[in-house]
Amino acid sequence: MEHKFISGIEPGQAISDIYIVTQPILRSTVRGDLYIAMFLSDRTGQINARMWQASEDIYKMLPKPGFVHIEGRSELYQNSLQIIINNISVVDAGKVSLDDFLARTDKDTGQMFEEVKKAVAKVANPQLRALAGEFLADGELMEKFCKGPAATSMHHSYLGGLLEHTWNCLRVAGAILPLYPEVQGDLVLAGIFLHDMGKTQEMTYDMAFSYTDQGQLLGHITLGVLLVQQKAASLAARGKPVDKVILDALSHIILSHHGQYDFGSPKLPATAEAFMVYYIDDLDAKINQVSKAIENEASDSDWTSWQKALETRLYRKRIE
Amino acid sequence: MEHKFISGIEPGQAISDIYIVTQPILRSTVRGDLYIAMFLSDRTGQINARMWQASEDIYKMLPKPGFVHIEGRSELYQNSLQIIINNISVVDAGKVSLDDFLARTDKDTGQMFEEVKKAVAKVANPQLRALAGEFLADGELMEKFCKGPAATSMHHSYLGGLLEHTWNCLRVAGAILPLYPEVQGDLVLAGIFLHDMGKTQEMTYDMAFSYTDQGQLLGHITLGVLLVQQKAASLAARGKPVDKVILDALSHIILSHHGQYDFGSPKLPATAEAFMVYYIDDLDAKINQVSKAIENEASDSDWTSWQKALETRLYRKRIE
Amino acid sequence: MEHKFISGIEPGQAISDIYIVTQPILRSTVRGDLYIAMFLSDRTGQINARMWQASEDIYKMLPKPGFVHIEGRSELYQNSLQIIINNISVVDAGKVSLDDFLARTDKDTGQMFEEVKKAVAKVANPQLRALAGEFLADGELMEKFCKGPAATSMHHSYLGGLLEHTWNCLRVAGAILPLYPEVQGDLVLAGIFLHDMGKTQEMTYDMAFSYTDQGQLLGHITLGVLLVQQKAASLAARGKPVDKVILDALSHIILSHHGQYDFGSPKLPATAEAFMVYYIDDLDAKINQVSKAIENEASDSDWTSWQKALETRLYRKRIE
Amino acid sequence: MEHKFISGIEPGQAISDIYIVTQPILRSTVRGDLYIAMFLSDRTGQINARMWQASEDIYKMLPKPGFVHIEGRSELYQNSLQIIINNISVVDAGKVSLDDFLARTDKDTGQMFEEVKKAVAKVANPQLRALAGEFLADGELMEKFCKGPAATSMHHSYLGGLLEHTWNCLRVAGAILPLYPEVQGDLVLAGIFLHDMGKTQEMTYDMAFSYTDQGQLLGHITLGVLLVQQKAASLAARGKPVDKVILDALSHIILSHHGQYDFGSPKLPATAEAFMVYYIDDLDAKINQVSKAIENEASDSDWTSWQKALETRLYRKRIE
Amino acid sequence: MEHKFISGIEPGQAISDIYIVTQPILRSTVRGDLYIAMFLSDRTGQINARMWQASEDIYKMLPKPGFVHIEGRSELYQNSLQIIINNISVVDAGKVSLDDFLARTDKDTGQMFEEVKKAVAKVANPQLRALAGEFLADGELMEKFCKGPAATSMHHSYLGGLLEHTWNCLRVAGAILPLYPEVQGDLVLAGIFLHDMGKTQEMTYDMAFSYTDQGQLLGHITLGVLLVQQKAASLAARGKPVDKVILDALSHIILSHHGQYDFGSPKLPATAEAFMVYYIDDLDAKINQVSKAIENEASDSDWTSWQKALETRLYRKRIE
Amino acid sequence: MEHKFISGIEPGQAISDIYIVTQPILRSTVRGDLYIAMFLSDRTGQINARMWQASEDIYKMLPKPGFVHIEGRSELYQNSLQIIINNISVVDAGKVSLDDFLARTDKDTGQMFEEVKKAVAKVANPQLRALAGEFLADGELMEKFCKGPAATSMHHSYLGGLLEHTWNCLRVAGAILPLYPEVQGDLVLAGIFLHDMGKTQEMTYDMAFSYTDQGQLLGHITLGVLLVQQKAASLAARGKPVDKVILDALSHIILSHHGQYDFGSPKLPATAEAFMVYYIDDLDAKINQVSKAIENEASDSDWTSWQKALETRLYRKRIE
Repeated sequence: MEHKFISGIEPGQAISDIYIVTQPILRSTVRGDLYIAMFLSDRTGQINARMWQASEDIYKMLPKPGFVHIEGRSELYQNSLQIIINNISVVDAGKVSLDDFLARTDKDTGQMFEEVKKAVAKVANPQLRALAGEFLADGELMEKFCKGPAATSMHHSYLGGLLEHTWNCLRVAGAILPLYPEVQGDLVLAGIFLHDMGKTQEMTYDMAFSYTDQGQLLGHITLGVLLVQQKAASLAARGKPVDKVILDALSHIILSHHGQYDFGSPKLPATAEAFMVYYIDDLDAKINQVSKAIENEASDSDWTSWQKALETRLYRKRIE
Repeated sequence: MEHKFISGIEPGQAISDIYIVTQPILRSTVRGDLYIAMFLSDRTGQINARMWQASEDIYKMLPKPGFVHIEGRSELYQNSLQIIINNISVVDAGKVSLDDFLARTDKDTGQMFEEVKKAVAKVANPQLRALAGEFLADGELMEKFCKGPAATSMHHSYLGGLLEHTWNCLRVAGAILPLYPEVQGDLVLAGIFLHDMGKTQEMTYDMAFSYTDQGQLLGHITLGVLLVQQKAASLAARGKPVDKVILDALSHIILSHHGQYDFGSPKLPATAEAFMVYYIDDLDAKINQVSKAIENEASDSDWTSWQKALETRLYRKRIE
Repeated sequence: MEHKFISGIEPGQAISDIYIVTQPILRSTVRGDLYIAMFLSDRTGQINARMWQASEDIYKMLPKPGFVHIEGRSELYQNSLQIIINNISVVDAGKVSLDDFLARTDKDTGQMFEEVKKAVAKVANPQLRALAGEFLADGELMEKFCKGPAATSMHHSYLGGLLEHTWNCLRVAGAILPLYPEVQGDLVLAGIFLHDMGKTQEMTYDMAFSYTDQGQLLGHITLGVLLVQQKAASLAARGKPVDKVILDALSHIILSHHGQYDFGSPKLPATAEAFMVYYIDDLDAKINQVSKAIENEASDSDWTSWQKALETRLYRKRIE
Repeated sequence: MEHKFISGIEPGQAISDIYIVTQPILRSTVRGDLYIAMFLSDRTGQINARMWQASEDIYKMLPKPGFVHIEGRSELYQNSLQIIINNISVVDAGKVSLDDFLARTDKDTGQMFEEVKKAVAKVANPQLRALAGEFLADGELMEKFCKGPAATSMHHSYLGGLLEHTWNCLRVAGAILPLYPEVQGDLVLAGIFLHDMGKTQEMTYDMAFSYTDQGQLLGHITLGVLLVQQKAASLAARGKPVDKVILDALSHIILSHHGQYDFGSPKLPATAEAFMVYYIDDLDAKINQVSKAIENEASDSDWTSWQKALETRLYRKRIE
Repeated sequence: MEHKFISGIEPGQAISDIYIVTQPILRSTVRGDLYIAMFLSDRTGQINARMWQASEDIYKMLPKPGFVHIEGRSELYQNSLQIIINNISVVDAGKVSLDDFLARTDKDTGQMFEEVKKAVAKVANPQLRALAGEFLADGELMEKFCKGPAATSMHHSYLGGLLEHTWNCLRVAGAILPLYPEVQGDLVLAGIFLHDMGKTQEMTYDMAFSYTDQGQLLGHITLGVLLVQQKAASLAARGKPVDKVILDALSHIILSHHGQYDFGSPKLPATAEAFMVYYIDDLDAKINQVSKAIENEASDSDWTSWQKALETRLYRKRIE
Repeated sequence: MEHKFISGIEPGQAISDIYIVTQPILRSTVRGDLYIAMFLSDRTGQINARMWQASEDIYKMLPKPGFVHIEGRSELYQNSLQIIINNISVVDAGKVSLDDFLARTDKDTGQMFEEVKKAVAKVANPQLRALAGEFLADGELMEKFCKGPAATSMHHSYLGGLLEHTWNCLRVAGAILPLYPEVQGDLVLAGIFLHDMGKTQEMTYDMAFSYTDQGQLLGHITLGVLLVQQKAASLAARGKPVDKVILDALSHIILSHHGQYDFGSPKLPATAEAFMVYYIDDLDAKINQVSKAIENEASDSDWTSWQKALETRLYRKRIE
């Protein structure tokens, strides 16, 4: 059965579906009866809900936050929609279709991952190719790489966004590397493949896009460099060490790919390859961010709302 | 006859060649004889020179600065080389091979310009194509466009550099536009073609790379927008007006292509096309700047000297 | 009949007047009846309104936003005032007294414009005076110059504000130029007259103070320089060209009059005249902004609320 | 007898005059003879000097730095001028014409001070006028006020510069206050009179423009506020206390007159009067700085050398 | 009787207690009856209140803001608590227990002040000790010093916070001075004792933590230096002048103790002692701010809410 | 035999000693004879040297740079000292007393290291103590830790400086931790011990203080975190894993200990422990930097020369 999205609920409908419950509070009415106020949400929005005739047991049973199945009815209260709940029960996260709750890339992740592997296979330097292969062979890591978002907001902030962003950066690199023969393509390709790999450990997305403790304490840039050291250590333990010069040049690309101290890079780009990865990453992120903002603008104005991170509104009119 | 480059002069050689004279000063020796101290230079460097038994007439005749033919001899003085001049005469700038005095692109400017014209011909929007055509039809302007540098230092700072930079940016755009179908390619191509066109009026390069008065007072960004208005006015006067929406979108790309207020853009990018031109321009300029610094490093160290504009030294070791 | 200002409406009054309607929404009550929620506004504020027994036809007929005549009654709802509308009809903007909807200078615009013309007539340089005259002779442009605001907020943000600000800056220049004989007064006077002329094309004010598309894409600084080029081209076409040195010095003043890159000037002041225009403009704008904030403070505290752009609250106590 | 300025010395002249000696060093020749190397300077420049056949006694007697009378001869050494000294003796600073060593305003300080007193006399508020009078009555302080520079470099960096700058700011205030009737003129006039008064204690100028220890540790802004407190305490001790509201408003003007934290103001302007003093001070300082740089440019180029503090070169061509 | 804290009020309780009333407004119901809407607050929060059947006399009698005794009843209105007031009367501030309305240090102020005096007594330099003694002997000043907060928010923002912060900084100095024997301990101890002394005049805390007019116009840094000058003048008047070198070094510490222009220091630290006071002050303030934010976090998350001044959330998990 | 320091050489002395040769150049005289110009240096300075009658073989044999033994004589040439070399031979770096060429801590490194070990032994948390122990047990690493400088300039820029700085920070932590009981001392002590450990790999100091390739590409902050991961992996491999929570909190301290993005920290402090390590590190570094600048000032002025990194000159006068 199809999920009833919150953005589509109208007054007076019967509701029986799964939502995320957040901030449940147990209160008592003036007459002393207990009730629970809470919010219900999915990826289209959030709505107020009340369960009258509630008990402390029901309240304690509720996840804070988590998935619940509710039965009830929508109604207008002071000109706002709310849900009056009759029954509520906890739902196991494993049985939920995550797509109802988190946005997802509209591209084919399987195909994109195949193309990523092909791009990485073009790395000619055997040590660098072996190192990239060590990442590709880590099934658990690759699953996160294909599933996670590239950010909680800003750009590619949807499931599969990390893969989509990396895939498209590799396509850009493939297109322009022939125009810059003095730039070492192997380092650029490996650098792009790994530049945001630390995000697999920085972010969570079981119910919403958020950060892990480790992600907040260390950040994906440092986490990426630590992953490189781990994979290189595995290779070395199997008798296939990677030259320090290669490891350092690659780690430098990851460290400097934000291009500025203010954006969390502890080192500024100091090689042509680091500059190229920085520009390709930034270009792809910004074009995605700008295009999505223009596409998703709610009003039909020729200008989007103010984009704080870009310090401007965006112009939506096309010349054609 | 081949020019004797200053970097190749050794002690004890007879010299008879053309150089740029700068900062000539008339002085008298302790015994009261007049002599002229001056510098001679070409594109490989600068050297101290003295003309003993000089007169006030000779001094007045000298350009300050300008081209002169000198006859004389090199010698070591206090362990530095200097030239002792016997004869000096002014040379008409038109008879000088400018290549001896200014660096020049190592690419074929005729071929690059042909490719630029082909890239611009791909603009589908007829008004935008007509506007670009108006620039291409301005022979005097195109001559400057093909001949001038893209900067006095930093990146593409050599004759033909403006063309080379524009040509390569158009190649990059051609390579990546297919990957961003939502971005309006016509505006990107026309925007790249014109983004630095104002530099034809901002810079001079008769003896050295320098700025015009107008260039210093207005800057190439404003000069580029003024050129667009002029060419659009010409078209309008011939009954082929360009829509205001197109002119504004194109002018916005030129105005915002430095991407930051601090770098002289009076407006921040507010369209996907403006962002793309900004990133392509910056990428091509920086890779050129970094590659040249790495290539031209005088020492054989693995690191270049400190690059002030990049706030780092650059690493020269390759992984291959 | 006098307009009934929103700030003066009290509960229980019958209302029959013209207001701006914004954000009308068609909704249905719990019982299924359609009604329209909307805001009504004039220059004194904004108020909630409801039209019960509405139809989809009425909703479609409403401008979004625009002027409407309404008949209805004010009432308290949950301790807030709202208007219950019985009849609503669209009003032609031409029949509306704009003063009820937009603030206006309390000075005489006719007299101020006369004084501006007199100040400009003092320019001794014939070419510069001819160029200024070309602007004064453009009736349509001068009408906008006399009517528009100098900003949407901050300083002189009322009808006639652009004229008032320019007029007062000319008065300041007239007062202090004798104290700085080395500064070229002609350039300062012409520069002040034209420094914000681009705002005639940057801003709109048919119902509220806002920006044109062109204004957001190019900004009034560039628009001002383009106007100078247009007027100079007209003069040249009539056989009265303006020297490039004059045009460049004047355009430089317009370009640099914000004094800092961060405030949208693509060039920093490089002449004494550019510095003087920058300081006079900034002084007049800030004193107006500070005085208005002190005068309009709603509370009777000795301090205004926090002024974000000035990074301080302002002290209102006088020593007298 | 007229001073022989260093800029006017030519080779082969006999010299007998007073100069400042700096950095004297006692050295021995290869043959073991003692000699003293030193610099001689006046306000037109600095020159190398040698005294052969020197002794340790002579060296010890020399001030480091200080005024000396020397007898000797100019000669060319390696194409640079130097002085060969035969006799050297210490000169009492009191017997030296300071004008030979420090630049001085070309305006009449007596007349400027009279005009300052007249401007201050226009303060209507009796307490504020009494406070200003307390400063005017302090002869020692006023002597420093009339004699000192306004800065060691940048603007008005010559004897009498502090007075000239204050005088001209008062003239500007007098000219524009009528245009801003809402601004309290008394506070502006008193504020301008005192805004740089702390410089009387911040700077020294016995041989060169420099800073006192106190000046470097506290700065003229704090020193000015301390002076206000001292003078107010004197008045209070004589039974004429100044209202706290007046003292605070005046001290605030002094504290905030640099307009920005980065320029050493611990508070940002928070009154219309503080803004006006800030702008008048900055305007007068910058126009002086710009005019002097344009006037004193050594070359005959249309552009001055790079002005670091202004982040630009300055354009010298006039339109007339 | 114990105060009934607002955070502890539940629906349906009778209330008879003292609160601060703020923003009282006289309104009329739809039927024309007058009522007063207002807020009641104490240090635990703020609550909405209504007094029906009010009169204009009652409204006029109310302080805006001030202490009132109210009698009434709590009730739920639209799911929020509010108080319905039956009787209201003004209460003299002197009869109020300020602790119910302002947070207070949990440390013993008497004991802390004793320890401050002991620390100051360790100053060996007799002039510096005399100067500190002059402050300690000023009973009125010391009462404010012991009673006031160190800030309105951020760190030590509670009664006694100024003392607690100064006391703890003195303890840190006492602990680390032996490790830096080259640093002059006397200046550090006196500097810490006085670094925030100006806050006694910058802040008010009769009902809430706020700023005086003088505090906002001058700031505690300047006020502190003015206090030092006053106390030194008192000593001098009694024949015990303090050396200028000592006064300047001490005043410099106060002026520079924020360490950066942006934080309101008009001078940067220029002595080892100034650096030490700056670091100790900042360390103690930040550790207090961080600890309080971690301790007071309302949720049970491992992370606090976003700390704007620190540009991060804070991690609350402990390793033990 | 004692080294003849360059700062002590006088004209006319015979020299036979070891120096570092830098920038040797083979030149020919006007008569065609070959000679070698070069610089000789030790930790007290650098001097010009010439070897006449040189050969290409000698030139090729010279290290560039490296240690050489020279025999020759000092003489005055154009009033500067230079060395005329008769014999020159390469010296093995192992046979050189490094102290003659690099500055060294004046403290006892053995004793400091013992105290560091004792401080670390106070860590109560067994996992954290084990992790610190893993570092202490790495003899090669500890040798570098005890031998290297803490910086190439700025603070503790001498052999043993890294140890001295870490040792003193641990002493400060030991002294003040009792005053902040809510701060987790174990993390602070371990954090200080390891905060600059990456400098063992970032810097070289065989002849002068410099950076490794890895140091420039990754920086000591990232290198420190990588070392922590390596040591934790070693422990885990021996069955003694360290909790992720502990590793992340410790790595966060290292990452954030520069306190600002601009100073190369990719994360801002987010725990009380990170703030404490940041402040202690900065305090100790700055006091060392300031004290050394005051102590080493060459002139006998009351002020040091301008300290670029501190944006001030430093005041040297003491109050005692």
